[in-house]
Amino acid sequence: MRVPFVKMHGLGNDFIVLDARKDSLPAMTGAAARALADRRTGIGCDQLVLLEPSETEAFRMRIFNADGSEVEACGNAARAVALLHGERARIETGGGPITLEPAQGGARVEMGTPRFDWESIPLAFAMDTANMPVGWAELENPAAVNVGNPHVIFFVEDTELVDLAALGPLIERDALFPKGVNVNVASLVGPDHLRLKVWERGAGLTRACGTGACASAVAAMRRGMTGRTVTVTLPGGDLVIEWRADETMVMTGPACEAFRGSFEWDDYA
Amino acid sequence: MRVPFVKMHGLGNDFIVLDARKDSLPAMTGAAARALADRRTGIGCDQLVLLEPSETEAFRMRIFNADGSEVEACGNAARAVALLHGERARIETGGGPITLEPAQGGARVEMGTPRFDWESIPLAFAMDTANMPVGWAELENPAAVNVGNPHVIFFVEDTELVDLAALGPLIERDALFPKGVNVNVASLVGPDHLRLKVWERGAGLTRACGTGACASAVAAMRRGMTGRTVTVTLPGGDLVIEWRADETMVMTGPACEAFRGSFEWDDYA
Repeated sequence: MRVPFVKMHGLGNDFIVLDARKDSLPAMTGAAARALADRRTGIGCDQLVLLEPSETEAFRMRIFNADGSEVEACGNAARAVALLHGERARIETGGGPITLEPAQGGARVEMGTPRFDWESIPLAFAMDTANMPVGWAELENPAAVNVGNPHVIFFVEDTELVDLAALGPLIERDALFPKGVNVNVASLVGPDHLRLKVWERGAGLTRACGTGACASAVAAMRRGMTGRTVTVTLPGGDLVIEWRADETMVMTGPACEAFRGSFEWDDYA
Repeated sequence: MRVPFVKMHGLGNDFIVLDARKDSLPAMTGAAARALADRRTGIGCDQLVLLEPSETEAFRMRIFNADGSEVEACGNAARAVALLHGERARIETGGGPITLEPAQGGARVEMGTPRFDWESIPLAFAMDTANMPVGWAELENPAAVNVGNPHVIFFVEDTELVDLAALGPLIERDALFPKGVNVNVASLVGPDHLRLKVWERGAGLTRACGTGACASAVAAMRRGMTGRTVTVTLPGGDLVIEWRADETMVMTGPACEAFRGSFEWDDYA
């Protein structure tokens, strides 16, 4: 069976988008996601995005990492899907419903409300998530936020001086985080302006992580470091994060289509 | 303008194939080739293959490396093009005419005749190309062959013990090779069976190099190490190289299509 796809990217984070909203596809497996994500023998991507019908929202967005694991949320993928869908819509994700709409040069996504209680991160035991009494090497006293997926945020003087490629995998798998964690290292580089590097759970160092930008901005606001609208500079470019009075996080940033095409399902199943 | 393409691979070496044989395309530039070859923001490939009309052969195949440079020949790309074309054809390349045809699981390509005289490699000065009195670190007394593009071949006990990532770039740019050179390290692992690693000029270490397999097989035959049909095991898989009595080299090996699609030319121009 011939399966159409769109290849998209936002801030250097790239996606294969498969649309099973009208015409259903064979069930996605971890092995098929891995095969499609291979950059030489497949289509190549950081994440595979699968759009499916939803009983409660306009449609449902599922996300598979390049390693075949399914994850709850991906902010960059949400912007790509907003651009593709072309109009405002509330959609279902594994991390809860989000609302997306196209915007100048990309898209705006209402990412829901952050959760700060330790059971929701989740952590292994009770702890103040605004200022956690834990540390790994020079990284200490992080904040934790769940924005659809779990994040831990370390505020440092200079993100460039942190060896996140070494510390990220250690922290990601620490027993403190029973579902793993995305590891953010952020520094305040100007008024309402953060610089951010992210070690993504299951994906490693990436050029941009939309949920990491949301989590880090909210953590900075909660500590009184910034106002309620923050520009987050990631290696791949900038996102603007607003934390509205109604507690909703809104992420605005670029997304674009690289190409579209089709493949034979049987070649990857 | 919307441009269709096919994404193909052979032994892990991957290609974007653009067909300008009937409908012409805007002139390819190094910058556009680089943009299309980007694995996150473009389509992604090792080489971009451009098919154009030919005045002398069925059509013409041009090859651009991922760095935007144009090269004369690529054996793996030739197999992919054979599969795509679907029937026997003699085609024009920057390295001379070659004849290709589909074969079981891939394609067979008649790669023309190898050249051994020092001016044709080219070398900077006269030398016996069957056993050259030169060396770099532990790599000594190579052979040189031009099979459409320039190759130097070192025969060693164990290819795994050679740090080709370090020595390849040094040798590639040595003043002995005025047009650069592809660097092959080969060992005889059985009767008529070579193991091969290749540092490709402009591309670095690759999983398979079809012209390197031809050059190394012919060099081994010339030294009496093997018969006239040799299996060459590359990191990406096997190629069979035959050096016919009429001096023509024939390469047989796998090729397949990964997907096909289209992109907006203006996004990459």
